[in-house]
Amino acid sequence: MQLLKERILKDGIVKPGNVLKVDSFLNHQMDIDLINEIGKEFKRIYQDAPITKILTIEASGIGIACIAAQYFHVPVVFAKKAQSINLDGEMYCTKVESFTHKKVYDVILSKKFLNADDHVLIIDDFLANGCALLGLIEIVKSSGAVLEGAGIVIEKGFQSGGDKLRSQGIRVESLAIIDSMTDQSLTFRE
Amino acid sequence: MQLLKERILKDGIVKPGNVLKVDSFLNHQMDIDLINEIGKEFKRIYQDAPITKILTIEASGIGIACIAAQYFHVPVVFAKKAQSINLDGEMYCTKVESFTHKKVYDVILSKKFLNADDHVLIIDDFLANGCALLGLIEIVKSSGAVLEGAGIVIEKGFQSGGDKLRSQGIRVESLAIIDSMTDQSLTFRE
Repeated sequence: MQLLKERILKDGIVKPGNVLKVDSFLNHQMDIDLINEIGKEFKRIYQDAPITKILTIEASGIGIACIAAQYFHVPVVFAKKAQSINLDGEMYCTKVESFTHKKVYDVILSKKFLNADDHVLIIDDFLANGCALLGLIEIVKSSGAVLEGAGIVIEKGFQSGGDKLRSQGIRVESLAIIDSMTDQSLTFRE
Repeated sequence: MQLLKERILKDGIVKPGNVLKVDSFLNHQMDIDLINEIGKEFKRIYQDAPITKILTIEASGIGIACIAAQYFHVPVVFAKKAQSINLDGEMYCTKVESFTHKKVYDVILSKKFLNADDHVLIIDDFLANGCALLGLIEIVKSSGAVLEGAGIVIEKGFQSGGDKLRSQGIRVESLAIIDSMTDQSLTFRE
């Protein structure tokens, strides 16, 4: 997605430890016009998939998923990162290791909101080692729903997550795949 | 907002400890059509305010803020609940006590994304004792920005947060104010 790549080149900041900061437009401050274009692009890519629900994980996936959901006309359901007293009843649970935060956390989703009748599109802002996505895929499998695929805004192609999942036959569509980055240059996959 | 009140009566579940679960449409699964109407209503209420930025707090405020922001044509910025390695540089910090989670957490916002030129609308899903809102107001004050007001989806009117803030002259607009609730009945403020 050209508009996104241009924005990453303009406003993305590469930090030590393979961190790409896009917090001025994607995951701290959010440029809603850009995210609307991202939502439309996910719809264009998945226009033939019979999506019934968009699944994401808190926190930075939620806004993108909600904007995208307007084009799919389906509800969003977001997995939560910790036990809450408001989440009782039966839940799907998994564990996810965060690349950014260097820790493992529990991820939960109420069973009420995902079942075998659903066709799920997972949306998230980043894909690096794929741990968050794997956790969400595990939840979809537990529910018996059909996983139609994943829509990722930025994939770090030099980390293994995306290619590993694709080799398992999972449809992973990333709007920008970064093959290499330093503080001097950033290369996208063609 | 009639549509919202009807939905709360239909799908809201009152739990012990003054907990109102609206997780089937607002803060776990999200009904995007309803949230769009909520966004439009916030715009109608604040149509004359010169909003330049919508401020919210992760996680469940983000989707609502993003959908609403489409009607204001301004960016969303969301405060984060914990230190992240991706958030360096100068930050506004405050502490918030969560009614739901019974704990105190740090809330941070990068100084880059809020300054004295901004006119801020705070959006959140719930207002109970007002701790989250107070934290966000403190951040707005620290930035020197003008606080135009707050837009809340559901206010628990029987807790003190909303009325306390209004008595301080802060504009707090809630789309549904609950004056009392039990597992048998739920009464909205006129």
